[in-house]
Amino acid sequence: MSKKNKHIENSKEYKSLNVNKGIDQPNSINPNTKYIKTKKKLSLDEYVEGIKSGNRTVLSQAITFIESKLPKHQEIAQEIIEKCLPFSGNSIRIGITGVPGVGKSSFIETFGLNIIKKQKKKVAVLAIDPSSNRTKGSILGDKTRMEQLSIEKDAYIRPSPSVGALGGVAQKTRETIILCEAAGFDVILIETVGVGQSEIAVHSMVDYFLLLMLSGAGDELQGIKRGIMEMADSITITKADNKNIQKANLAKAEYKNALHLFPPSESGWIPKVTICSALENTGIDTIWETIINYVKLTKENKFFSKKRDEQAKYWMYETINNYIQNMFYNDKDLKSLIKQSEKKLLNKEVTSYKAAELLLDAFKNK
Amino acid sequence: MSKKNKHIENSKEYKSLNVNKGIDQPNSINPNTKYIKTKKKLSLDEYVEGIKSGNRTVLSQAITFIESKLPKHQEIAQEIIEKCLPFSGNSIRIGITGVPGVGKSSFIETFGLNIIKKQKKKVAVLAIDPSSNRTKGSILGDKTRMEQLSIEKDAYIRPSPSVGALGGVAQKTRETIILCEAAGFDVILIETVGVGQSEIAVHSMVDYFLLLMLSGAGDELQGIKRGIMEMADSITITKADNKNIQKANLAKAEYKNALHLFPPSESGWIPKVTICSALENTGIDTIWETIINYVKLTKENKFFSKKRDEQAKYWMYETINNYIQNMFYNDKDLKSLIKQSEKKLLNKEVTSYKAAELLLDAFKNK
Repeated sequence: MSKKNKHIENSKEYKSLNVNKGIDQPNSINPNTKYIKTKKKLSLDEYVEGIKSGNRTVLSQAITFIESKLPKHQEIAQEIIEKCLPFSGNSIRIGITGVPGVGKSSFIETFGLNIIKKQKKKVAVLAIDPSSNRTKGSILGDKTRMEQLSIEKDAYIRPSPSVGALGGVAQKTRETIILCEAAGFDVILIETVGVGQSEIAVHSMVDYFLLLMLSGAGDELQGIKRGIMEMADSITITKADNKNIQKANLAKAEYKNALHLFPPSESGWIPKVTICSALENTGIDTIWETIINYVKLTKENKFFSKKRDEQAKYWMYETINNYIQNMFYNDKDLKSLIKQSEKKLLNKEVTSYKAAELLLDAFKNK
Repeated sequence: MSKKNKHIENSKEYKSLNVNKGIDQPNSINPNTKYIKTKKKLSLDEYVEGIKSGNRTVLSQAITFIESKLPKHQEIAQEIIEKCLPFSGNSIRIGITGVPGVGKSSFIETFGLNIIKKQKKKVAVLAIDPSSNRTKGSILGDKTRMEQLSIEKDAYIRPSPSVGALGGVAQKTRETIILCEAAGFDVILIETVGVGQSEIAVHSMVDYFLLLMLSGAGDELQGIKRGIMEMADSITITKADNKNIQKANLAKAEYKNALHLFPPSESGWIPKVTICSALENTGIDTIWETIINYVKLTKENKFFSKKRDEQAKYWMYETINNYIQNMFYNDKDLKSLIKQSEKKLLNKEVTSYKAAELLLDAFKNK
């Protein structure tokens, strides 16, 4: 046994976290899924092999390590991720956002089922919702919301990591993507709510960004943060069924008009607007075809891999910047000084630059 | 003489920089302006009093200190700014952007002249163009571009600070705003080009952000960065004269339609779209009225001062963040390590987080 495997075996935390015990596993209700009923402790290689073979119990356990705050778990997680990294990358990562009420869950359920049944692909659904005040488990916590999808053997649904700072949640989600890809999922859907910074995080980790909108563009827009529309690779008007179809088509025309006024994206892609009904399963395949066209175009013009490379670098630099900023802002002595400086600044006693300089001097002289 | 004044008097750099000598002063060609022909060296108080009395030679000299890289000049500049700070803030700060060719100079000339002649207000024109590869002096360097405005006694035109990092240029411009306000300018126009990060900087230092657009929304949009449209408090279609009027009105309707799909801004303001012709001086007053309406609304709902306070804090934190990031990124030993990490990252040998961690470890162990 390698040294690495040994230290996992011997860790106290590892022992208390046997596979098949206390796993936050939305799919565990699926009677069709065959789990390896392994009671024995897994070695690092067994984790990696388990994930690569598509064993979802092992995958879930590894994600639990990713989400754990215990340093020992983090260490195990990092080793698993490192081993899985060469097998990652072969999926289409799709971000899905929209205000509450737009029908994200219904959409993802129908969309996911279509991809599994018609395209014969494996679909993982993740979520980012760091701002949630709801119970741990957050936007995807309610399993009943995607009842049909959750029992599909080719679907894997994982709730958002616990409430926390966006940077941390984003990191966990990106690491989870790596494991899901190593586990053979072809499509990763990442759900988020259209109200905050989390869109930017999701946009920075996906290949394609889909914005769900309601017809009747007015009050419904209230919740969407400015700038999100320009990030969308396509907009889909949801709930286009029965009496809504006409309204949805009108909204489609309006959004199409608006998008055409936006400057073109570096990808060479012209954002599309479509309508759909998750209830009636109409317009859902069009969305998939649109995404496939996008992937084809951007793989041909190399934007696809360029964007992924840029995203990888973005998260490296984000992590560094957050860390070094925290060195400053989390300094206990500086905290009160920062408050004083803000006060002086707003009283026009100092300029922004002078205030910054004084704080930096205090920081350097520590 | 106070200690402060004395050290300015005695400084070597000060002596070599007498007022009326080598000043980058676009208005010096104005025969109507009465300069105080002071050959003697100025004390700190004389600088401040000179600025407050509206003496533009003294103002220009002080701005030259702001723009100087010499530490001694910087020290003098900071003292002048500190003294002027209590007298700043009483202007409307207006950012003006648009791609090259949209007619920014002609617009600013006509707009500025209208404000001076009809509103009886004093107008200062500044610019931010850190990306410029042109000669020092940059986008406003060519005095002939605003020939009529530049000879107005109530106008003051100052070219963009020399080419440099955006953070530094933005700081100099913000400090220049303070001096211009202390000098009694009622309206500060800040011009920038619609192609880069500089819009965000300008947007973060003005009360009102005006985007100039050409009619025929298509190719002309190529140069505008995504997201800028959503920052605009109003859009004006320029060159709406002669045969262009119909096209301009069409573009106006289209943009209006597009803006109405955007989520509302925190200011409570609904962005407006207008058309204008700088050549024929039509539609220019409407823009001024629009701005006045904006100011009225946001002063009533307190957004005006809230935004200014947030901007002051934004620049304090920007300055701090830039400084501490530079501590990391400008470290000679780290630079090659960062390059190596990027390589490993793109080769999928490490995750973004692991790469960041390794670099941060190297930084901490220095």
